[in-house]
Amino acid sequence: MKLLITGGGGFVGARLARTLLARETLAGRRIEAIVLADQVAPPADLAADARVSARVGPLLEQCAALHDESFDGVFHLASAVSGECELDFELGMRSNLDSTRALLDALRARQQGGAPATRLVFSSSVAVFGPDASVPMPKLVADDTLPAPQTSYGVQKLICEHLIADYTRKGFIDGRAARLMTVTVRPGKPNGAASSFFSGIIREPLAGVESICPVSEDVRHPMSSPSNTVAGLIAVYEASREALGGRLGLNLPALNMRVGDMLDALEQVAGKKVRALVRFERDERIAGIVANWPTGASAARADKLGLKPDGSFADIIRQYIDDSRARGDAATALKGLDA
Amino acid sequence: MKLLITGGGGFVGARLARTLLARETLAGRRIEAIVLADQVAPPADLAADARVSARVGPLLEQCAALHDESFDGVFHLASAVSGECELDFELGMRSNLDSTRALLDALRARQQGGAPATRLVFSSSVAVFGPDASVPMPKLVADDTLPAPQTSYGVQKLICEHLIADYTRKGFIDGRAARLMTVTVRPGKPNGAASSFFSGIIREPLAGVESICPVSEDVRHPMSSPSNTVAGLIAVYEASREALGGRLGLNLPALNMRVGDMLDALEQVAGKKVRALVRFERDERIAGIVANWPTGASAARADKLGLKPDGSFADIIRQYIDDSRARGDAATALKGLDA
Repeated sequence: MKLLITGGGGFVGARLARTLLARETLAGRRIEAIVLADQVAPPADLAADARVSARVGPLLEQCAALHDESFDGVFHLASAVSGECELDFELGMRSNLDSTRALLDALRARQQGGAPATRLVFSSSVAVFGPDASVPMPKLVADDTLPAPQTSYGVQKLICEHLIADYTRKGFIDGRAARLMTVTVRPGKPNGAASSFFSGIIREPLAGVESICPVSEDVRHPMSSPSNTVAGLIAVYEASREALGGRLGLNLPALNMRVGDMLDALEQVAGKKVRALVRFERDERIAGIVANWPTGASAARADKLGLKPDGSFADIIRQYIDDSRARGDAATALKGLDA
Repeated sequence: MKLLITGGGGFVGARLARTLLARETLAGRRIEAIVLADQVAPPADLAADARVSARVGPLLEQCAALHDESFDGVFHLASAVSGECELDFELGMRSNLDSTRALLDALRARQQGGAPATRLVFSSSVAVFGPDASVPMPKLVADDTLPAPQTSYGVQKLICEHLIADYTRKGFIDGRAARLMTVTVRPGKPNGAASSFFSGIIREPLAGVESICPVSEDVRHPMSSPSNTVAGLIAVYEASREALGGRLGLNLPALNMRVGDMLDALEQVAGKKVRALVRFERDERIAGIVANWPTGASAARADKLGLKPDGSFADIIRQYIDDSRARGDAATALKGLDA
């Protein structure tokens, strides 16, 4: 089978590609080819795999060509992140809404041309939830909590969920929208996501570098490790429509964490000196966005698919440490830990 | 003040225009001009009013010109109807989604050019609600019921609600989305709306013509008279943001009726012979769409604005009779009643 991963050069996309290549099969079929579409080139290890080809450039421009190409399955992860979308409204609308519409219309054109409906997994986000003046947000947002997004990013993700549900109802695609929790710990540099600090306050201290936490230690938030997130995307792809239980977006499993407890886990894994590298300095822009985010999530539909949250936040930190060592970048990435 | 009514040549739009012209003011300001944008020319009485000007043509094409024109307020009612959107997917996406986006972007361009944010009322629909496999639909859908639209029309309306909420949050417009109940009794011919028969089973018998009811008499549905619907749109326009209580779509008041009870009301107002002109003949396409529609609605936020449902379905029928007589088309429209 031939798969398309949009956002395939990014952190989650590349990890998904590696996991799929290692599995060799998806939904019982042998994976022959994976196309990674992204604004950036894929990491070298993926580019070196004979089954992988890369398309580098804006997705919106790539979609026209997709009318002439057949895929058995699509993971649609490409997205501008929340902070960017708040700063640049048009970027968010183009990258998150217009690109998704163009992708869906390319798949619809193929289906209407006689091809079978392509299976598609969309990475939606827990950012679809928020408190509106008319509806308080529950402590744990559930699959069927009323979404009231408080960012353009969240609105765009929710709109895409509903487009995918309708294209699926019409038989144009076989689409599934999975709401990702905040993926932690991301390697590399901070990005434009308002949630970037949730990784930063672990990653930077482990590297021996000071990190600024822009929100209070009492902020609570639903998290997932990279490996658990990828496992969720694959399970949602492989599920039967009956097992999915509906066309609306579903929550992936969350480990609901308090920032202070995340830092306790950091101390438990890496020691007091590492934890002491986190400094609290409130950033009103970030804190304002995060204040409207869910403080926790439940995931009943994902649970029925056999998906569970990570065991503990210490496990999530250890996964990051193990990954850094496996990649061979431990010397810099884990300088604080090894000091 | 200068107002734009999209869909201003249609039944609700024209009635809204007449009501506004008769009031002479809106939100405490004198109405100097009303522009009616529609695919069809407005009725003669409106066209004859010196305050009215008409723009005839597709809204999507008209929106480019709106970048250079200032409006104090907009009622955005233009829409392809539910039955059309199920039959022609691209028509619905263009008429209901792309046109709304183009309108919002024209208003955004003006606001970003220094103009104040334009107040806009959007006619959303009770069709945003439906039963998904993962969530049963309550007997009465409320303002905060999870929307799970089961038609492309409903999806497009819901997406527009969320776009309007986000453009409002960003300060580009001052938008409000009001969910219309099924407006009954519409005059004229049946249209492409799957809900068209809710008017037809009253209107045709009153005209002495047989009418086919495509669903069982036990079907229940939330209704509103034309005058109560227009009153709701005006109240939502005039409400302060605080009184509106949030940016999400709100339900307008509904009279929740069973088809059999509608016909009892018809008999009460117009007699047994008129009622006997309704024949039940199931239409699977219509019945399938209607089966996924709400069986009733509540409207707590509208109630707080002082909006109430119609008193009874007999009142709604009498409103139609009075309107037909006032228009002078009673001779044909009420042939069954007068026979």
